[in-house]
Amino acid sequence: MIPDQLTQGQFDTVYNLLSLVIAAQLFTALYLLIAQPRVLARYRQAIVVSAIVCGIAAYHYFRIFDSFKAAFVTDAPGGRGTYTQAAGLSFNEGYRYVDWLLTVPLLLLELIVVLALARKLQRSLLVRLIPAAALMIALGYPGEVSGDNVERFVFGGLSTIPFLYILYVLFVELTKSLDRQPQAVRGTISRMRILLFATWGVYPIAYLFPLIGFDGADAWVLKQAGYSFADILAKALYGLLIFTIARAKSFADDPGFAAVESSHDDAPVQVATPPAAGSAMA
Amino acid sequence: MIPDQLTQGQFDTVYNLLSLVIAAQLFTALYLLIAQPRVLARYRQAIVVSAIVCGIAAYHYFRIFDSFKAAFVTDAPGGRGTYTQAAGLSFNEGYRYVDWLLTVPLLLLELIVVLALARKLQRSLLVRLIPAAALMIALGYPGEVSGDNVERFVFGGLSTIPFLYILYVLFVELTKSLDRQPQAVRGTISRMRILLFATWGVYPIAYLFPLIGFDGADAWVLKQAGYSFADILAKALYGLLIFTIARAKSFADDPGFAAVESSHDDAPVQVATPPAAGSAMA
Repeated sequence: MIPDQLTQGQFDTVYNLLSLVIAAQLFTALYLLIAQPRVLARYRQAIVVSAIVCGIAAYHYFRIFDSFKAAFVTDAPGGRGTYTQAAGLSFNEGYRYVDWLLTVPLLLLELIVVLALARKLQRSLLVRLIPAAALMIALGYPGEVSGDNVERFVFGGLSTIPFLYILYVLFVELTKSLDRQPQAVRGTISRMRILLFATWGVYPIAYLFPLIGFDGADAWVLKQAGYSFADILAKALYGLLIFTIARAKSFADDPGFAAVESSHDDAPVQVATPPAAGSAMA
Repeated sequence: MIPDQLTQGQFDTVYNLLSLVIAAQLFTALYLLIAQPRVLARYRQAIVVSAIVCGIAAYHYFRIFDSFKAAFVTDAPGGRGTYTQAAGLSFNEGYRYVDWLLTVPLLLLELIVVLALARKLQRSLLVRLIPAAALMIALGYPGEVSGDNVERFVFGGLSTIPFLYILYVLFVELTKSLDRQPQAVRGTISRMRILLFATWGVYPIAYLFPLIGFDGADAWVLKQAGYSFADILAKALYGLLIFTIARAKSFADDPGFAAVESSHDDAPVQVATPPAAGSAMA
């Protein structure tokens, strides 16, 4: 699985990609925490969960980065050398599954919480989506660490069942509830479901690489790139879209808040009166 | 590309420059976050993005600094020794491109957001500037890591196309919209575009060094210095200018806020009454 040798270019590519993911997750988490007052109090739970998801991902990518950096050494510093695996160390891929086990259920939680659905419906969606998400990740892991293609195939298949169930809940059941959402956010919610479907789809594709005989250093670098970009899109971009929805819903709920917060010169001119200023702090 | 040897003076110069950039970016980021309440709520988004940009740059300079420190070892500790590349490790320049890929689009976002243009115009500018900025950086990278001068020249040329397009949008299209900006900020906005043009110009010049045969340890140290100063001006000073614009616009929008916030004895004397103080907190 892990290649014995990497060229300088392959090593640098993985090194820079892993660092890119750290920066993207860490600063999206910080941005979301700092930007909390830009939405009404009722939507801040969703923003905080989004920030926590990006924070957890940043933590795991620090671990993956350090593990990768230590696991390979070059025979020709500064030049066009070859990297081989360092004695006594091994690159650990399992981190990714630990990350997903924590973050994937939280990603679904973010989406449901920001919609501010009726309490009973929200509860019904969460008690089905969150266990399904945890089960999907837990079933994938034994296949990922197995060297045996049959085991990989069986666990991959089992893991697909909760994945399809999650898609059913998001694209069929949830759709019935979207007509109560403000017009301004319906398009964003639809796009988020597609983003979730498209980025989550990267993981089973990378998972299948060994099954279709696509192996070796190039396949491995491509898999790292796929996971890295999928994680940026599925967590950082996704969190920023949650923020966009929360902000649009805040403006729709409270025109006074919108007037204080709006920064466009075509917005109605309104001098902040103390009550409006107070609601900005709420 | 990376020199095999550095003198003590060359090593110390790069070491101190990299540390200077960390200090400049980190504390500009902290200053901007702390100073957020000094502008009206509607301009804080631009300030937070400026802080995030400086934070991302600080993160990458921590990485560059650590990579540089580990990649060179001296043969004469404490004295005037010579530094050579350490076994098993390599200095990684690619970080800079990862940093720029994230920060350059955000620098354009800061500028457009703080102008608070009409919503439709803002959107039209952003959907052109941000992809152009990302494309400019992405096209430069293959040339930077290539040892081949022809490849370097070709990718440098390709990368120049989106750069010229960005200049066109900023200096021609944006100019039409500046007449709605308050008189007090028009000069600053013009100076910021020049700053952006001048500092971004450092990068292609450093990029061209190997093409004109200017190579070796001195050229490499000069390139590090050029990148370091350009990054301080283009991100930290630029972020502080964004803050200046946001503050001037806040004063123009809300005279009550200006009276509470103004700290000059030529400002109209006005004792802060409780409601005015409330709006300062908004």
